[in-house]
Amino acid sequence: MTSVDLADALIQGDRRALARAITIVESTRADHREQAAELLDAVLPHSGSAVRLGVSGPPGAGKSTFIQTYGLHLVDEMGHRVAVLAVDPTSAQTGGSILGDKTRMPELAARDTAFIRPSPTSGSLGGIARRTREALLLCDAAGFDQVIVETVGVGQSEIAVADIVDTMALLLPPGAGDDLQGIKRGVMELADIVVATKADGALLGPARATAADARQGLSLLRRRHPGWDPVVVLTSAIQGEGIADVAQAVARHHTHLVNHDLLYLVRRQQDIDWMMAEVTAGLLASFLTEPRTAEALDAAVSDVRNKIRSPTAAAQQLLSRHVN
Amino acid sequence: MTSVDLADALIQGDRRALARAITIVESTRADHREQAAELLDAVLPHSGSAVRLGVSGPPGAGKSTFIQTYGLHLVDEMGHRVAVLAVDPTSAQTGGSILGDKTRMPELAARDTAFIRPSPTSGSLGGIARRTREALLLCDAAGFDQVIVETVGVGQSEIAVADIVDTMALLLPPGAGDDLQGIKRGVMELADIVVATKADGALLGPARATAADARQGLSLLRRRHPGWDPVVVLTSAIQGEGIADVAQAVARHHTHLVNHDLLYLVRRQQDIDWMMAEVTAGLLASFLTEPRTAEALDAAVSDVRNKIRSPTAAAQQLLSRHVN
Repeated sequence: MTSVDLADALIQGDRRALARAITIVESTRADHREQAAELLDAVLPHSGSAVRLGVSGPPGAGKSTFIQTYGLHLVDEMGHRVAVLAVDPTSAQTGGSILGDKTRMPELAARDTAFIRPSPTSGSLGGIARRTREALLLCDAAGFDQVIVETVGVGQSEIAVADIVDTMALLLPPGAGDDLQGIKRGVMELADIVVATKADGALLGPARATAADARQGLSLLRRRHPGWDPVVVLTSAIQGEGIADVAQAVARHHTHLVNHDLLYLVRRQQDIDWMMAEVTAGLLASFLTEPRTAEALDAAVSDVRNKIRSPTAAAQQLLSRHVN
Repeated sequence: MTSVDLADALIQGDRRALARAITIVESTRADHREQAAELLDAVLPHSGSAVRLGVSGPPGAGKSTFIQTYGLHLVDEMGHRVAVLAVDPTSAQTGGSILGDKTRMPELAARDTAFIRPSPTSGSLGGIARRTREALLLCDAAGFDQVIVETVGVGQSEIAVADIVDTMALLLPPGAGDDLQGIKRGVMELADIVVATKADGALLGPARATAADARQGLSLLRRRHPGWDPVVVLTSAIQGEGIADVAQAVARHHTHLVNHDLLYLVRRQQDIDWMMAEVTAGLLASFLTEPRTAEALDAAVSDVRNKIRSPTAAAQQLLSRHVN
């Protein structure tokens, strides 16, 4: 199948074509990278209308359960088409993905109008985020009007995901209040919507306390998007409580971005960042494949190993030969 | 002061020269980058003997308190010279460092044989880690035979720090056991030593439970260094309990690396990674300063903004002009 045929099938909403296209953008093979660029160009005019939501939160926040319940609400109650992608920086380290596994969201995965894609299991966080950005564009072009990008942890991966979505939801489990002091500056500032999870049974009280702490913490922080006051929503995925409120908050935030011309500005900057990340990766790849590089690189590696030169100085010498 | 004079003063253990040298390696100015390379080359033969310890852990694990108590033990009881550096990915986001502040460790900072350096507050995680790697080499060459690199969070920053140190200690607060299931695959695998903190008063029981859970969790994981079984130590920084045990575990791990030729292999790979990171950054910088790049870049940005080309395709076009 040519790139054009594949792009056509994808634009028609063919899920197998979408899966095949994502496999191509995730590939590191040179011919696949060219095909990926053709594909992305071909589907580009058909993209841009999806709501792009990032979902993050510490381990134990209940991300899988929330996303499945939220996704089912969007599909069954609101008639949306939902795609779920994952950015999992730990998978690069451990060689196995802990996110994006379809078996974690069996009900949602069974819907015709849902598409769930595991995280790429190799590459650096930067590389995974680059490929996820391309996969997101493909899902958007395939008519999935709600794309959810899931990530784990507290730190750099949230920043990477915030860089590719419009709206960030931070999930906090009951009892997370104690840690808010520690995490708020780094991660709370990324949140447009805070979701206090597991507000049911014995955990209802602690979940309410987390929500109250989050409201107080957020009031002290600067805003991620001008004019938008982050919303805190109390939810119970197993009881279905608060899920519609999250959907409403996401829609309100999206409207806010559109009405204030922020969606345009945010996505434009994201696209420029994306281009520069590709340029950087490409410069390194072309440097490494130059015939004269191999010998110079061997000499540099030898100098560094034998402590004749520091890595910084060896790099500068490699570059001076290359540039002149 | 010339680079040679500065290097000489630094090698003599002059703390002001060290501080000045670190300021130079943290600078992005082109002349400073050249000077940094000269400095690093000059001090390189005097480096390599320090024990390089990474300390990570979730917010609330008590990292500052532990590091101060641990540092005082090394200085006062064991006669070491201790340097503390920080890698704080959230500082790039929020514009303010939450780590490495001398005022957090006032007693340790007051010692003549201790050196505490805040985290660089600008740049990406990759950039911060690059500069910290250079600062670490400078501290080593200045005769600080114990260098501690502190980081926060659960995720990518631990991986970055693990890439520049010999030994990783993961601090876990009382009650962290519940979250071990979530964090163990990503972060526990990076730990050579797990430190269960705050084992005093009412928290003694929960701290013991955390230590027990960590022992069980670690037994399921693959080893970071062949032949080394991660050690779990129960500590109370305020009571000074277990601190000497941590020092002993760090020393044992270092000896293990030396005796099995692993220290040599680990550092050699780290140096090569460091060199390649510098090469990548240098390639991008030289690409951006080429006269012909500016115009092509403007055109590419315009194409991306107007959705004429995808960011990936625009990057490929920029590169094709550059390479040919």
